[in-house]
Amino acid sequence: MKDTRYIIKMAQDAKEASRQIANLSTSRKNKTLLAMANSLKSSKRSIILANKKDLRLAKRKGLSQAMVDRLTLTESRINSMVNSLRRVARLKDPIGEIIQRRRRPNGLKIKKIRTSIGVIGIIYESRPNVTCDCVALCLKTGNSVILKGGKEAINSNIAIFKALEKAVARNSLPKASINLITTTDRRAVSVLLGLSELVDLIIPRGGEGLIRQVARLSKIPVVKHYKGVCHTYVDEAADLNVAQKICYNAKVQRPGVCNAMETLLVHEDVAVRFLPGMIKEFKKAGVKVKGCAITRKIVKSVKPVSLKDWSEEYLDLILSVKVVSNLNEAIEHINRFGSMHSDAIITDDKKSAEKFLKEIDSACVYVNASTRFTDGGEFGLGAEIGISTDKIHARGPMALEELTTYKYIIVGSGQIRS
Amino acid sequence: MKDTRYIIKMAQDAKEASRQIANLSTSRKNKTLLAMANSLKSSKRSIILANKKDLRLAKRKGLSQAMVDRLTLTESRINSMVNSLRRVARLKDPIGEIIQRRRRPNGLKIKKIRTSIGVIGIIYESRPNVTCDCVALCLKTGNSVILKGGKEAINSNIAIFKALEKAVARNSLPKASINLITTTDRRAVSVLLGLSELVDLIIPRGGEGLIRQVARLSKIPVVKHYKGVCHTYVDEAADLNVAQKICYNAKVQRPGVCNAMETLLVHEDVAVRFLPGMIKEFKKAGVKVKGCAITRKIVKSVKPVSLKDWSEEYLDLILSVKVVSNLNEAIEHINRFGSMHSDAIITDDKKSAEKFLKEIDSACVYVNASTRFTDGGEFGLGAEIGISTDKIHARGPMALEELTTYKYIIVGSGQIRS
Repeated sequence: MKDTRYIIKMAQDAKEASRQIANLSTSRKNKTLLAMANSLKSSKRSIILANKKDLRLAKRKGLSQAMVDRLTLTESRINSMVNSLRRVARLKDPIGEIIQRRRRPNGLKIKKIRTSIGVIGIIYESRPNVTCDCVALCLKTGNSVILKGGKEAINSNIAIFKALEKAVARNSLPKASINLITTTDRRAVSVLLGLSELVDLIIPRGGEGLIRQVARLSKIPVVKHYKGVCHTYVDEAADLNVAQKICYNAKVQRPGVCNAMETLLVHEDVAVRFLPGMIKEFKKAGVKVKGCAITRKIVKSVKPVSLKDWSEEYLDLILSVKVVSNLNEAIEHINRFGSMHSDAIITDDKKSAEKFLKEIDSACVYVNASTRFTDGGEFGLGAEIGISTDKIHARGPMALEELTTYKYIIVGSGQIRS
Repeated sequence: MKDTRYIIKMAQDAKEASRQIANLSTSRKNKTLLAMANSLKSSKRSIILANKKDLRLAKRKGLSQAMVDRLTLTESRINSMVNSLRRVARLKDPIGEIIQRRRRPNGLKIKKIRTSIGVIGIIYESRPNVTCDCVALCLKTGNSVILKGGKEAINSNIAIFKALEKAVARNSLPKASINLITTTDRRAVSVLLGLSELVDLIIPRGGEGLIRQVARLSKIPVVKHYKGVCHTYVDEAADLNVAQKICYNAKVQRPGVCNAMETLLVHEDVAVRFLPGMIKEFKKAGVKVKGCAITRKIVKSVKPVSLKDWSEEYLDLILSVKVVSNLNEAIEHINRFGSMHSDAIITDDKKSAEKFLKEIDSACVYVNASTRFTDGGEFGLGAEIGISTDKIHARGPMALEELTTYKYIIVGSGQIRS
């Protein structure tokens, strides 16, 4: 591919730049982030023009309404990118933090300190705001970034990137600290994913298909953000009013996101009291409810659920319901069919809550709260580059700390090993 | 392959077992570790017999002396496995540790707690002690383990494993918490490395060839322990007596390990004073010295070094020497040719030391000490499963903490997201 060389050169330059920005002072990084915000603000018009170009092409290609919506930039959406840059500037800089400190009997002083990772590659679909968010988080953590966005957003991405680049230049940071692959050749991704000596981490952002493809091709470690098949289990000892409020929120408040509930599990002892009212509420909100045989005995109008449904991420106003005979069955169901993202128990029984918290093997496990809280902002992490369903390196909401690694620094006075 | 089904079944069972042992109490894990030590001790004779079988086959196949040495089990080597099991039993259990704790303005109580990873696959060469060490560390961290050792050690591994298995059974732990792949079919490794839904992490232990092969084939995250091309840089402000002692130790004390020095860098202002005496010492110890043009002007007998030498891990009494004109050149050399393992500066200048610590992009960076200290035991971590040259998940000595992940547990009182 004719672009192979250009991508290798980009990664080499990014690596070189990463060594320089790894040790930038916090104030210089923050100054650049604020300059990026201003530059983006004053480039609003050109960004919206470029976005219009993408939108015209999208319509010609007949993209779905949902995709067009994600692609669309309005003045208010650009403002929220600007605000997000300013917010990242205000966050605590994690680089240089002393994670551990020990003094050995031989006098060696060992510190484990938080450092930048190096070069991070982000592969994403057609949401142009990702361009800006990822640049901000990588810069704050002293990492170089290589962006490869969806081809449908290429004009918008270029326009946003140009605005950010100006701020990099004005603050005399190395040009190659932020990089955008502008070729729309799909093979560019394969080339990038092969550069394991130059790129340290790949974060794909998008649908399950994209993530699986990246994981399959990559020679570089990938932190994966697979689907969220989130459960709420209403225990026999649940306060049913609380349960109804939480289940409604988890399903209805924003069904198209990964932390929304997809399956409701109900203890058989409360099913008759809980399900009729709950399902009525759901139906009022337009939720299509599918249920197990017992559910359908309790509420006749419920459609049957299939085995496949239990592992489905609907991202829509659809819900599967299952009546279980006890807590163990609920835990087994979640560990078998869930995606280890976010799962909740509603109960006033402390022992059941503890058991659930211990035995559910998910990134975020809740007692008496909506799974919708799984989010970097809601967790107080200040930002989020995604929600990892992996267990290696990062799990759950991935914020600044998860974009760092560490090194050991050891200070001696002539110690040798015997 | 006829063994495909057996390996998939093993991984499924290991996954199932991992859920059970993830929440074992510390005392039960420790009791099992001590039982393993006793069982190993009382199986000494059968282990040595099995090992003799491996050694006979090894000699017939004409294995190198070094390989035969690594394969050989003596009574004292078995004793050190026994001691290592007891030592791991005494270590602090990392599982359940609260890493972070926060209370959100809406009242949600969020804890980030340390948990087991799940199923860990270890692929290693023909050192039978690895069988025992890895079982101990994985059990202590509540992970199931699947072992695949080199075929040359198969009889020894089976004998050791049988002894460990007895302790698992006696303490009523699930049988599938520890697993040994006994087929010597090489394709077994490929099958294992494809099971990304069942196995959570792969740790290869062995030479660079093995690790690269595993990294290439694996669909599961791999923590890589590549070579150690370690440097010592003698700065212009070095105490040359200290420098000589440290350099000698780093090269000579145990040249066959990854934290031994492979390249010596010397500031040009001290080269004439330092190198003749140092090289004389090295030669007395049998070290073959290769040097740059300036080194060879100072000590005529030094052989020329090639470009390839700078990235070579000799693991032997061979050393490359380079005279550099300043600290920057030393840092550039290390970041370019090193393997990001362990590198040291010898200096009494605080500013130079700080610059070196900041700018060297290695797992362990030293001031005035031997790189030979890079080791889980020496760092006070109590154990070590390897030394990671990766930056993702684990870096440097990998001990108990690095065999864990975390999850968020969130306790609310009916909170919903607005």
